This record gives sequence, structure tokens and C-alpha cells, in this order.
Amino acid sequence: MPMTLTQKILAKASDKVEVVPGDIVEARVDLVMGHDVLMPLAFEAFEETGATKLFDVNKVVAVQDHFVPAPDVKSAEQSKRLKEYVKKYSMVNYFELGRGGVCHTIIPEKGFVVPGDVAVGSDSHTTTYGALGAFATGLGSSEIGVSMALGKMWFRVPEAIKVVLNGKPGRYIGGKDVILEILRRIGTDGARYCSLEFAGDGIKYLDIDDRLTICNMAVETGAKNAIFEVDSITNEYLQNRVKKDFDVLKADDTAEYKGEIEIDLSKVVPLIAAPHSPDNVKEVHEIKGVKVDQVYIGSCTNGRIKDLREAAEILKGKKVNENTRLIVVPSSQEVYKQALQEGLIDTFLEAGAAIGPPTCGACCGGHMGLLASGEVCVSTTNRNFIGRMGSKESYVYLTSPYVAAATAVAGKIVLPEEA
Amino acid sequence: MPMTLTQKILAKASDKVEVVPGDIVEARVDLVMGHDVLMPLAFEAFEETGATKLFDVNKVVAVQDHFVPAPDVKSAEQSKRLKEYVKKYSMVNYFELGRGGVCHTIIPEKGFVVPGDVAVGSDSHTTTYGALGAFATGLGSSEIGVSMALGKMWFRVPEAIKVVLNGKPGRYIGGKDVILEILRRIGTDGARYCSLEFAGDGIKYLDIDDRLTICNMAVETGAKNAIFEVDSITNEYLQNRVKKDFDVLKADDTAEYKGEIEIDLSKVVPLIAAPHSPDNVKEVHEIKGVKVDQVYIGSCTNGRIKDLREAAEILKGKKVNENTRLIVVPSSQEVYKQALQEGLIDTFLEAGAAIGPPTCGACCGGHMGLLASGEVCVSTTNRNFIGRMGSKESYVYLTSPYVAAATAVAGKIVLPEEA
Repeated sequence: MPMTLTQKILAKASDKVEVVPGDIVEARVDLVMGHDVLMPLAFEAFEETGATKLFDVNKVVAVQDHFVPAPDVKSAEQSKRLKEYVKKYSMVNYFELGRGGVCHTIIPEKGFVVPGDVAVGSDSHTTTYGALGAFATGLGSSEIGVSMALGKMWFRVPEAIKVVLNGKPGRYIGGKDVILEILRRIGTDGARYCSLEFAGDGIKYLDIDDRLTICNMAVETGAKNAIFEVDSITNEYLQNRVKKDFDVLKADDTAEYKGEIEIDLSKVVPLIAAPHSPDNVKEVHEIKGVKVDQVYIGSCTNGRIKDLREAAEILKGKKVNENTRLIVVPSSQEVYKQALQEGLIDTFLEAGAAIGPPTCGACCGGHMGLLASGEVCVSTTNRNFIGRMGSKESYVYLTSPYVAAATAVAGKIVLPEEA
Repeated sequence: MPMTLTQKILAKASDKVEVVPGDIVEARVDLVMGHDVLMPLAFEAFEETGATKLFDVNKVVAVQDHFVPAPDVKSAEQSKRLKEYVKKYSMVNYFELGRGGVCHTIIPEKGFVVPGDVAVGSDSHTTTYGALGAFATGLGSSEIGVSMALGKMWFRVPEAIKVVLNGKPGRYIGGKDVILEILRRIGTDGARYCSLEFAGDGIKYLDIDDRLTICNMAVETGAKNAIFEVDSITNEYLQNRVKKDFDVLKADDTAEYKGEIEIDLSKVVPLIAAPHSPDNVKEVHEIKGVKVDQVYIGSCTNGRIKDLREAAEILKGKKVNENTRLIVVPSSQEVYKQALQEGLIDTFLEAGAAIGPPTCGACCGGHMGLLASGEVCVSTTNRNFIGRMGSKESYVYLTSPYVAAATAVAGKIVLPEEA
């Protein structure tokens, strides 16, 4: 029976000739990722299994990213716990504050994922790595603990939805607009437990950073995973990053999909998700003029080098509006260094932005820019639920770095060309 | 009767020919500074006086620095309150996140204080500005509120202690070592309500950043204020920064001092204040080898450009120890820009430091690097009281940027030359 790319990966990882949606498979995992908030809990579960060592020390990665530098004692204690587990189990892939960054940026960046991998992480946005042709999904900390012990995990093979991207995106349109377009069409439960599988001749216009953004926020549609097939852009990205061999799998032409979404990228316009849901998507011009107290550019969704380049392109030679504050948080130490070399950090400083160290920061309501009651924030992050970034009476709009930067300059929501 | 420099300033500001210690004077204030934590309270007191406008809008400065970017909703609300007062009273000197930095860095940096001024602030480390020959001291928020309303405040004229600095400091010795040497000698109550007045031929070897550090931590001796006479180094610093004229006052040769401390700068060695008091001062070599979890370089005490240069001098081409994390927080946007231009930020990133936006950060236990129980931190900040930077069971050592940077490389307390 023909299979989709996700199905092929799960079949191979569970030594099966074929799988169909609904099958429960026990698949080998190639990567288990955890961070300071949940990996200590995962290690508790790990120890409850009776395990005394990691299934493969090279395949487990620990990242300090959510609450570092610690904003309070509780967070400091949690980071300390993670560090203790790292020592106890002789972990080799550990990223301390200042040495790594946001997990979903550094896992691809440092070559931990290759096409065809099964990757799991203690974080819902683990779907990000599907941009590289891997099956990647977030799991609860108990499952992460078991994965670290056994090197395998059960999965229900998901139904697939094909997302066909055609055409060439216009000026100022990137991955964020594409995933917001998808959210606008199918909502936050439109792909519940499905795999989103991307195809179409428009993919060649989306670079890896765009694809990472799309797969990152794919989880907001309820998807189990999201995946792009490997092309020359993927291979170029992987070159010099990955050290292990990999086979490139492809979906069968006749694979069955539960549904199909077709998007003409040339018709996508700048989009923004208004409070309080990622699927409350508006065209930016529809809500132009909303006054903004804070703009936040960062996170695993849009804190990579392409995002900072886009923001800097708008901010270059301009100043942040006097009524607005701008916070820029590069999502990894590498991104920060690259941005420094390209003069982007200089542009941000000159514009009057506060530049934070790589961390999840305000995205998850942790620190580094929480909101007061009544405040409005335009953010490049992934969720705008009530209270997500601070006060339950604050308002968060999700958009691209272009729109966010333009908004910082104008002090109100505007289109990129209006900054 | 002959007067000290502090006495001359207070006499002039209260239109008296002379004052003597113990006199209560009502002095005009030339600068009133407040920050996000206490200025909202000061404005409450201001309004209780019945005032409807600031005594002089050019002489009041508001700075967002302690809890920005907001690490929690409570801080966000407090920053928002400050911003509301700034608008309500049409303030012109307001420093938003990303536009200013730590108050005690930006007040001198932006030329708000000149020699002979009476400067007050809602923060104990307001003593810092004495480095420029001003009378500067911290007041409670009620007094700040009244100062904003009336443009004057009562003071008890302090007794003076003369600190004579002779000789040329050796390699790796700076302002932090000098103030720690003073604390070693007189303790945290050795100058209670006194003015510390600096003199001696060694002053010419201390640049303004050193003097700012000394006056900053002078408050740890219990001093009401600390003050340096104006010399060519002061004038060079003030050039291009200050826009108003000023008279240069000098202490009378025969002025009376309650006490005198003489320090031969050539004999000062690298010093460090061990837990849990700024006067628990050791010579660094005495406690070498203490393992360190975190190094923090920043704050109004040692987060200026000279401090970052010193830290970078040690860190250049080296890596932070794998068991230690390093947090560097430039104390103003200007400092950050300058550090960027000089390649210091690059050095910190390459070394594996996390670089925070200008904020008081972890110094006052706010955010940006709090400590877990049992953790040890070497910090360039000003206070190491129990729980000051996080857990009540954490341990903070105060030292210079040289020693702090070397410690980050070694992972344990070492001398600068041992990194």
C-alpha cells in the first residue's frame, strides 16, 4: 500500500513493510530532546523505569532555554536539577546558558536531526524539525523518560493532510504568513493528530528558516507532526552540520491523504493572529492602527537569522516609536554571533531595542518582557492565548518579523512598507 | 569656618555662608532621579503634597531599569505605572527599556549631573554621582516625592571622613579593589551618615569609571555621600556631555574631618568580599579555588565600558569553564554600543557568555540570573547579603571585573593572571 512520508518513516523505524493510519507502532527514536522545565520530570520517569543509563548518550540532548538566565529562585532550582541529571547520566549533549539557545533552534542548527529521523522532545513545538524531513513531535515528560531509557516509543500512525504550496510568495511574505494562512483556513483543531505533509512547486521559494517556522506552528493546528520532503535547499542546509548518513525517503505518488489544502503563495498577504487564538487570523491591513506597547521579536518560531535580517531590514536607520518598547531575542548563540557579524545587532541597538540573551523569554510567559494589564504586544512567537505572555488582561498579536518591526517603528500595527 | 567639599555644596545650595556638621539645611536640588520600583511610590507622595506639576521638568529623570524587560506581571504593572506618571506630568527625561539603561550609569553618561550639584535619587546607590564632584545621595520615596514637588529637601550636614589615596595602583587594580579596601578597614558602619571625601595624589590614576565604582559602593560603609574633587579627568569626562555651566568648588585646606583613611594604592591587591557582607573582604589569593556556578558582570557598580574592557581582556580567546555560566549585562545602551564597536560583545559571545540587555538584573535579585540553593556566584555587583541574588542558601562573592572574568574561565576563584 502506498504511504506518505510520515508513514514511511514510522514504518522504517518500527521495522515494518507498511503502516496505515491508526496502527500503533513501536518505533526507534533517533533523538530525545528535553529542556529545563520538563526534562527533570522526564528524568524522574526515566528512573522509575529502573533504567540506570541512557539508551544512547549521543542521542539525548538537554537544553537550558526556558527560564534562563533564571528570573526567580524556583527556575534556578529547576535548572540546577537538570544540570545534576546531566552529570549523573554523563550526558555529552548539554547546552548551558550562553552555550546553546532555544532548543528548537539549536537542534537543527547543530545537526542533531537528519531526514528520516524519529525525533521526540519534551515540548510541543518539537514539530519544528519536520522542516528537515524528519518525523518530529512533542511528548509528555513520562514518554520522554521512557524514550530516554528504551530508545523507542509507541505512536499511533497519523492520518495525513497534504498541504500543496504553489507559486512564488510576494515581498514581505514568509513562513509565518504561510502557517497563519493555514491556521486561518483550518483552525486550531483542523489537523488534530494528523501529519501535515508539504508539497508543491512553491516550496522551492521557502528556505529552511521559513520551513522551520511553518513546522513549528503546525502544532497550533493540532497536528501530530509536519514534514517537508528533502530538496536541494535541505541538503545545502544539512551540509557541514550533520555528521551521520541518512536515507532520503519520499512519499509515494499514490499515497492517501485525509484531506488536501492548496495555497497559492503568490496570493498570501501579510497576516496577523489577533487575540486570543493563533487561528483568529486577520490580514494586517484589516486591523491597521491598533496601538502597541511592546513588540517582541524572538522565540523558536521567529528568532533565527532570517527573522533578524528581516526585522533589521525594516529597522535600519529608524527608531522605535517613543510609546513602544522593542525586545529582540536571538534564538541561539550562533544566531546572535551571525547577527553581530552582519551588523544587525548594531541596527537593533541604534533603533532603541533591548536585546536579550537566547532564551524562550516572554513567549511562554517566563520572563524578559511580560505584559501588564491592558497592554498590547505584537510578537513573532507562536501562541496568544489569554495570559500567555503576562497579564490575563493583555493582548497579543502574532505576526512575521517584517510586520513586527514595522509596528515597532510606527507604534501601531502597520504593513511592512508603511514603517 | 573652613568647610569640606560636601559642606560647601550644601551651604551654597541652602544660601548659607557656612554650615557645620549637624546643621539641618534646606537645600535646592538640581536633580531628582527615580526608577521603576520606587518612583511610582514617590509620585504618590508627590501627589499627597498637593503638587500638580514638577518643580522643574528638566531636573527630574525617570528610568526603567530594575525589573525590565519585565520578568513577571507585577513588575510589568509597576513599569506601566511609572510610564503613566511620566505622561501625566509631561516628563521629558524618561528612559524606556532599550533607550537608557541602569539609572546610575545613564545619569552621569548623559550629563545630568555636574560638579557642585545636589542630586537625589530613589535608590541608595545614588551616591555614585559624587564621582563627578556632586553631593549625591539616596532618599526614601516620600522624600523623592517632596523633592519633585518643591525642588528642595532637608539634609543634616554630615561629618566628613577624608580618604587619602596615594600612589599608583598596580596591574589589575581598579575602583572595586579600592572601595573593598575601604570596606575592609572601616566595615559596613564605619562611615555612618558621614561624607567620604577623596583626596591624594593617587586619584589621578583613577578614571571616572573607577571613581563611579568607589562612590557607588561608598554607601556600603554607611556613608551619606562620597565625593571626588574635580580634576582634568573629570573635566574631560564632562566635556560634550553636560550642557549647563557649573562652578568648581574645593574643600578648604584646613577643613575639619572626623577621621582620615590613607591608602597606598600601590599596595592594594585584588580583593573580594566573601558571603554574606560587603565588608567580609579577603585577598583573592586567600580564597582561591572556591568552585563557582555563576559569574555575573554588570550593574551600576561595574557594568560600564571600562569594566567590560577589563573582562574582555581576560576572556579574549578563552572559553567559560564548562561547569560555570557567565552572564554579562552592559549597564547602558551606550555602553552596549561602545562594547559592540570595540569587539567586546564578540569576545563575550565567543567565550560562551549570555549577554543581557541593560538592566539591574540579578544584582538586586530581580531576574536575569538568580541563584539556586547551594550555588556560588562571583559578581561585580555591590551587595552579597543573604538571599540578595536568589536562594537564601546561595553564596555571593563581590569582586572586580578582572577577577570575575578570570574566575569564569577557571570555574573557580582565581587571580586575573591565572585565567
